[in-house]
Amino acid sequence: MANEKMIALGENRSVIRDLFEYGLMRKKIVGEENVFDFSIGNPSIPAPKKVNDTLIHLLETEESTALHGYSSAPGDMRVRTVIAENINRRFGRNQSPADVYMTCGAAASLTISLHALLHEGDEVIVFAPFFPEYKVFIEKAGGKLVTVGAREEDFGPDLEGFKEALSEKTAAVIINSPNNPSGAVISHEDMKKLTDILKDAEKKFGKDLFIIADEPYRELAYGDTQVPYIMNYYENTLVCYSYSKSLSLPGERIGYVTVCHEAKDKDKIFAAICGAGRALGFVCAPVLFQKLLLTCHDQVADVSAYAKNRDLLFGGLSELGFECVHPDGAFYLFVKAPGGDDAAFGELAKQFDLLLVPSASFGLKGYMRVAYCVSEDTIRRSMPAFKKLAGACGITPKA
Amino acid sequence: MANEKMIALGENRSVIRDLFEYGLMRKKIVGEENVFDFSIGNPSIPAPKKVNDTLIHLLETEESTALHGYSSAPGDMRVRTVIAENINRRFGRNQSPADVYMTCGAAASLTISLHALLHEGDEVIVFAPFFPEYKVFIEKAGGKLVTVGAREEDFGPDLEGFKEALSEKTAAVIINSPNNPSGAVISHEDMKKLTDILKDAEKKFGKDLFIIADEPYRELAYGDTQVPYIMNYYENTLVCYSYSKSLSLPGERIGYVTVCHEAKDKDKIFAAICGAGRALGFVCAPVLFQKLLLTCHDQVADVSAYAKNRDLLFGGLSELGFECVHPDGAFYLFVKAPGGDDAAFGELAKQFDLLLVPSASFGLKGYMRVAYCVSEDTIRRSMPAFKKLAGACGITPKA
Repeated sequence: MANEKMIALGENRSVIRDLFEYGLMRKKIVGEENVFDFSIGNPSIPAPKKVNDTLIHLLETEESTALHGYSSAPGDMRVRTVIAENINRRFGRNQSPADVYMTCGAAASLTISLHALLHEGDEVIVFAPFFPEYKVFIEKAGGKLVTVGAREEDFGPDLEGFKEALSEKTAAVIINSPNNPSGAVISHEDMKKLTDILKDAEKKFGKDLFIIADEPYRELAYGDTQVPYIMNYYENTLVCYSYSKSLSLPGERIGYVTVCHEAKDKDKIFAAICGAGRALGFVCAPVLFQKLLLTCHDQVADVSAYAKNRDLLFGGLSELGFECVHPDGAFYLFVKAPGGDDAAFGELAKQFDLLLVPSASFGLKGYMRVAYCVSEDTIRRSMPAFKKLAGACGITPKA
Repeated sequence: MANEKMIALGENRSVIRDLFEYGLMRKKIVGEENVFDFSIGNPSIPAPKKVNDTLIHLLETEESTALHGYSSAPGDMRVRTVIAENINRRFGRNQSPADVYMTCGAAASLTISLHALLHEGDEVIVFAPFFPEYKVFIEKAGGKLVTVGAREEDFGPDLEGFKEALSEKTAAVIINSPNNPSGAVISHEDMKKLTDILKDAEKKFGKDLFIIADEPYRELAYGDTQVPYIMNYYENTLVCYSYSKSLSLPGERIGYVTVCHEAKDKDKIFAAICGAGRALGFVCAPVLFQKLLLTCHDQVADVSAYAKNRDLLFGGLSELGFECVHPDGAFYLFVKAPGGDDAAFGELAKQFDLLLVPSASFGLKGYMRVAYCVSEDTIRRSMPAFKKLAGACGITPKA
């Protein structure tokens, strides 16, 4: 008989995936244009033109066995070099190419980091609301998820709750800013306080504590929002990055994890990352997409469409009387479920063919995640449905 | 502190990788053309022309977000369909697209299969000589490696040893045919006997036992060698396949695992595969290379160069007096170490700038693995060095 835990993980599709599949079915019945699917975080803007041009150029000019051959397990050294330089230039750091390990995207960066750092029974602190797969990844690595809440007014971290959650069993903290699902970005002030608390805990418990920074949405910050670079606050940091959103290449699986050059026992941590990548069967990150980064590491897809969507959706829903926190990044709007029951509200929204994800699966009840990585047209056309939904739950428009 | 086991795996580079790095260093000293590097299994023939043409065509014609977007976790359904059809056509099977799970290459297929099947403490039987990473993969999944030997005359499986190794704790058997490092292909007769033994053990122990067929070298079989398709002998089989060797795309990480349609509890096993892929952080296999398979699933790189290399090397070394089993597949020649000490013989070979891998790391002492995925010219030019090596260990050429 196969492993029961793995069977359960395979059989229980995520709520998001269920809703997405429902949407596909519903579209067949009422027509593609009549279903407003805000369920899934699949980028809706194309990769920069330079991305495909570069891929074609590589395929046309590079010798086949050199182009498609194995890279070393941590990645092509030239690629690791441009990434270290990119980080150093943008964030004033001192990263070496030897600190960068190329991965098959952010999920792989996370699992490799967790397997590298954790011992059986270690606790990993996560701030709710959070990406539901964190729980799966942490538990598979032998750890235990410990949840800390967020401030309701702005979805910043609950720092008092964080202090209380830290214990002798804590090994690491996952920070995801810009956040999925709330869109919140942790401010400089909060980051300073959070990392000070962690430094105190390191002294108190006499052990190294790690921050795992999950940063697939780093380039998706709007207006003059600054996204603090965590290594600048805390040295025992691993940054998990992905080009899924920044280059609109989610299916190609390319990213990296980098250990802060000044982390204590940096070499041991990096060795553990190599060991975990090896033991989990990653071999190397896809090499064509590694080589793409030689010239495209600093490209960013045109995210202005997301910014426009955010304004349209935030403005439209606020006007209708919905309460939502203004998101500074990512491509999610977190809307308070009128009445407080997110599951019931999600079902009600489905009656108007609005597919919104109830927040319970993100470790926090009472909200809806609205993924606005859709066409502007979808948002505009969805507004009458949102208006009906507001009416159905007795919300009154703002004066 | 990071996880000690992972640190050790990251710090202890494989013997093969060490030798390869030594070769790079040595080439700088004595010149590229004077080092005969037979250490690494990196394909030396280009991908079929149709592969790059198809990749370019996809990049030039497909809409970006559709081309590079996430596929579902088990893979693009159209791709899974052509793969199931390919298997059914070639091997007379009855596989459904729903039995195929796309992966980031054979290593990922193996780790996902092992995590899906194993419970803590389960035993996995492997026939020596074997790919050294099996031990790493099995142990990471909570299992224990149990080794069975091979017949010395042809490196077929030691069937008596196999019977004895089976126990209540056995969960699975890994079969790798064509074999790395011996090049041996398991015959129809041996496969029949081996699977009959396994069926008896299923009855004796009252449990399902699985074969994990690791088949990256399936298309590399020479002359009229037939490589038995294990599902045709045994239903509780998972086939782990990779396009690394067949399409010469080792760095791109594309392959699949498929559960035999008639396996008992097939749906549960497939769910466990989905669960393991999810928990290990694979998300989906690289989508550009998935889509490549829509038209290139039946392409095979021109392996005639490997066949020619095999004949040259086997003929040349036999003539010099070395003992080697004639390999029917893969791109490895397994040569008996004169005197029996493979480590010492490996060091001696290095004196003549011949880089051969001692067999101890493959779970069997006394042999050398010679990877002949090199240029024909390298083999021809290496013969004088092999002649000196033969002289140095007192081997007399055949009459």
